[in-house]
Amino acid sequence: MRKIVLSVGISLDGYVARPDGAVDFLFMPKDYSNAEFFKSVDVAFMGRKTYEAGMKMGGIFSRWKMEFYVFSKTLPVGERDGVRFVKESPERLVQELRKKPGKDIWHMGGGELAREFLRMDLVDEIRLGIVPVLLGEGIPLFPSGFPQREFLLTECKSYSKGMVSLVYERVRKRKRKA
Amino acid sequence: MRKIVLSVGISLDGYVARPDGAVDFLFMPKDYSNAEFFKSVDVAFMGRKTYEAGMKMGGIFSRWKMEFYVFSKTLPVGERDGVRFVKESPERLVQELRKKPGKDIWHMGGGELAREFLRMDLVDEIRLGIVPVLLGEGIPLFPSGFPQREFLLTECKSYSKGMVSLVYERVRKRKRKA
Repeated sequence: MRKIVLSVGISLDGYVARPDGAVDFLFMPKDYSNAEFFKSVDVAFMGRKTYEAGMKMGGIFSRWKMEFYVFSKTLPVGERDGVRFVKESPERLVQELRKKPGKDIWHMGGGELAREFLRMDLVDEIRLGIVPVLLGEGIPLFPSGFPQREFLLTECKSYSKGMVSLVYERVRKRKRKA
Repeated sequence: MRKIVLSVGISLDGYVARPDGAVDFLFMPKDYSNAEFFKSVDVAFMGRKTYEAGMKMGGIFSRWKMEFYVFSKTLPVGERDGVRFVKESPERLVQELRKKPGKDIWHMGGGELAREFLRMDLVDEIRLGIVPVLLGEGIPLFPSGFPQREFLLTECKSYSKGMVSLVYERVRKRKRKA
């Protein structure tokens, strides 16, 4: 089954961006590569704000060979500038995509879309690149408002300049008192 | 100089406790030991809510050979039940303690006291035990409202049941555009 992989860089205090959407605090260590990850996905999901932040940085989306979906309640539905704007429920779109053969699906964020996916229990894997800075304010990756979700740690590595990479797999069978 | 070490267990979404203060989601892996850490500290700081949560769990504080300080704006100042209740500014108390010889100081949390210390740039080290669960709601370790603070990663290890231990040292010399 095509997995949904939430893969993002965050600050040590859990922010994907500064309050204004800037991600200048993130960096890519020399000894780190996401080439393997990019090979494993062929669809990317993002929220409207993440899309707009990407456009401000020069429209990074058309550079990658991937189908981009932007979830937005306000923007008109349809295909423009190499991305597909959708209003439909994530659950339905995921179901549809899973009927077709393909690679995994990259959930690029942001936090509001992540919360929606976590509410519907649609996140199968989490890949975090944690940079060693406390921002003190920003846009959280995990805003509150979804049920408890257990994960299994599958990778824990550190890279130059103190970036930590953590990979978790969703565990759905185990039950836990909450 | 006696360091102030913020050392706590958190969920993957950054909570030190559930909304009601419960910490049932935290666990101590068999292959993990904090004996070394306990040997390195002889004073512990906590906020009033962390103190009350500890008292609910049976007053864990008297079990450890440590001087406990509870920062509270509402509780009467003085020594009771093996802990010292203080109203004074963290900065002044830290200055005072640093004049005396002694070991490092453990900042046990919670988030509100951590924010106050981060505002005053009084946190010298951060030790996080991250458990592999998203709670979806709770009391954050790093509530927003302090300036950006850079850190250096000094340890990154994983333990049984997927607990990740990260240790960071405060870097004060480097300047960064913010």
